[in-house]
Amino acid sequence: MKLAVLKETRSGETRVAATQETVKKFISLGASVVVQSGAGEAARFADADYQSAGASISPSAADAAQGADIILKVLAPSSEELRVIGRGSKLIAILSAYKDPDSVAAYARLGVDAMAMELMPRITRAQSMDVLSSQSNLAGYKAVIDAAAYYGRALPMMMTAAGTIAPAKVFIMGAGVAGLQAIATARRLGAVVSATDVRFAAKEQVNSLGATFVTVDEEAMKEAETEGGYAKEMSQDFQSRQAEFVAGHIAKQDIVITTALIPGRPAPKLVSADMVRSMKPGSVIVDLAVEAGGNVELSRAGEAIETGGVTILGFNNVPGRLAADASSLYARNIYNFIAAFFDKDTKSLDADPEDAIIKAITLTRGGAVVHEAFAAKEEAE
Amino acid sequence: MKLAVLKETRSGETRVAATQETVKKFISLGASVVVQSGAGEAARFADADYQSAGASISPSAADAAQGADIILKVLAPSSEELRVIGRGSKLIAILSAYKDPDSVAAYARLGVDAMAMELMPRITRAQSMDVLSSQSNLAGYKAVIDAAAYYGRALPMMMTAAGTIAPAKVFIMGAGVAGLQAIATARRLGAVVSATDVRFAAKEQVNSLGATFVTVDEEAMKEAETEGGYAKEMSQDFQSRQAEFVAGHIAKQDIVITTALIPGRPAPKLVSADMVRSMKPGSVIVDLAVEAGGNVELSRAGEAIETGGVTILGFNNVPGRLAADASSLYARNIYNFIAAFFDKDTKSLDADPEDAIIKAITLTRGGAVVHEAFAAKEEAE
Repeated sequence: MKLAVLKETRSGETRVAATQETVKKFISLGASVVVQSGAGEAARFADADYQSAGASISPSAADAAQGADIILKVLAPSSEELRVIGRGSKLIAILSAYKDPDSVAAYARLGVDAMAMELMPRITRAQSMDVLSSQSNLAGYKAVIDAAAYYGRALPMMMTAAGTIAPAKVFIMGAGVAGLQAIATARRLGAVVSATDVRFAAKEQVNSLGATFVTVDEEAMKEAETEGGYAKEMSQDFQSRQAEFVAGHIAKQDIVITTALIPGRPAPKLVSADMVRSMKPGSVIVDLAVEAGGNVELSRAGEAIETGGVTILGFNNVPGRLAADASSLYARNIYNFIAAFFDKDTKSLDADPEDAIIKAITLTRGGAVVHEAFAAKEEAE
Repeated sequence: MKLAVLKETRSGETRVAATQETVKKFISLGASVVVQSGAGEAARFADADYQSAGASISPSAADAAQGADIILKVLAPSSEELRVIGRGSKLIAILSAYKDPDSVAAYARLGVDAMAMELMPRITRAQSMDVLSSQSNLAGYKAVIDAAAYYGRALPMMMTAAGTIAPAKVFIMGAGVAGLQAIATARRLGAVVSATDVRFAAKEQVNSLGATFVTVDEEAMKEAETEGGYAKEMSQDFQSRQAEFVAGHIAKQDIVITTALIPGRPAPKLVSADMVRSMKPGSVIVDLAVEAGGNVELSRAGEAIETGGVTILGFNNVPGRLAADASSLYARNIYNFIAAFFDKDTKSLDADPEDAIIKAITLTRGGAVVHEAFAAKEEAE
């Protein structure tokens, strides 16, 4: 089994799909690994490091992909890259299939067996393969470091001979993987941290990290939870009261970090232009959902802007801003997936098509679209 | 007593010598305060904030300084600014007198009574007025935030479903005020921290912050200490063994922060070009002494450079990168000084010239250079 690791070509993509560590592990499994020269450059992994781990280095993507059974990438290939991937090869990457359904048809047409890592099901067995979770975790950390870098004050309380500096007030909106890591990091730095989430179940996790949970009506959330979750159930009345309460809270914060995503849909708008204007000059907002349309009305993808003295950070690919660690975790996710389905006798990735994980992430196989969500769509057209 | 707060004019100076808080306090003392319009802008303090604290706003430096008894600044005035300061006015700022002794003669010639905050003696009574200490403290914090912002990995250990990320190794050279705050901040962020200092007495403080003290020969340092301090006493042999030991230590670090200053002399070179080259690609060095010539051979003042994959941050005015807090603490240092010597009957700053603090910081009075270090120099010429 030959694995090829290609260099990412999209602008701003610093990550790489394999590391020295995973190359070694693949070779122990009995695979051979080819790495395109410079693939790890942006993450500071040198060709020589891959070589010393046992990989061979290829001068071009075409050369690396030649005869490869599996192509490893971070992001979906461009149409140019796709041309070098041979019929019958497996492609494993974050394929953003829902955002770009046309690409799925292209994989089928070219006979590429495409597996979308972002569709990994949230089941226990797949946790170690979950790229959304591994990358969100780092994004949550980096959001706080970015906020601290742009904020004109220190985050911790400082007791000095000249007097005391008050700790920063940090508010995290959305307490998923990214939000919880942001809470933990802001707490590490000594900030006073609060957080909110549409799921009342998040309260306990928020509290356990030393932050307070912000809600206008805890009883209403509690009731809704026992009746089967927030999103559908909360009344219009609750939602407008909560929005007003959150608006009042935001006006008192120094740093706001938003992390709310809804799978397959644009990110919810949580912070209006009025709320931005209500904040003190010098405050910082980080919009981690900016690539999905943004949680903040004024944020702009790929930019750090300032409006009324408030800085709004809308960096793209925040995990890629920690290229080395993001690559390490991503590469491990991929290794964990391949190792779990690797057949030691045939020395190949030959998994049961009916396995829950394989079913969830396989878009195309043998020239056909096989994923439910996209196969149905094809037929309907 | 009229106090005038001027806007800083040197490029990159973001701080301001008074805040809303200190304006209020000066007014309670019985003083009046004039603030030059825009003086607090770079630190995000609006004219309106100063006004609501009781200050009046002047459109220009000349206008603000007109008839002022005391001029408050952060840095020494340019020759242009100096022209607006009236004969008999007191000037209180970081005057960098040793770096620019000619300015001292100019103050005398123009009849400005100049007081240099950076010469505040290190005695208990003056601790709350010590600007070097208050600003170094923030520089130590910001050095770690800057390093974390440029470092392509996370600082804390992270235990994720995909596996564990090792914590960063951070080495702090020089355990003074800046170094100790850098240790504390790196520890907060979960790094594995070590530190060194020429004073063995620093070991206890380093350890109390959860960092290890790096020395090739603890016994030799201990002995030297009891015999009266390191700097003069340590043998050539010790120094070369220590340098070699530190070189080996640096090669294993992810982040190195240097903070070593010698008052009135160029900063000691601690990190050679060879040591920089010995570090892993992706490592980050922060040279907090860059404005005093630098502790790192390759660092450049005002720049973030990269060499062999190692990033070297040589930012100028690191406290000014936290403009709001740096201004708050600086303004409090100034207030604490003025309040301590304020005469409530005459409503003026009329201190005993023989007081240890006044003697240490007063450069000129009534048209004459009165500070020992500079008066002697004048006579000698």
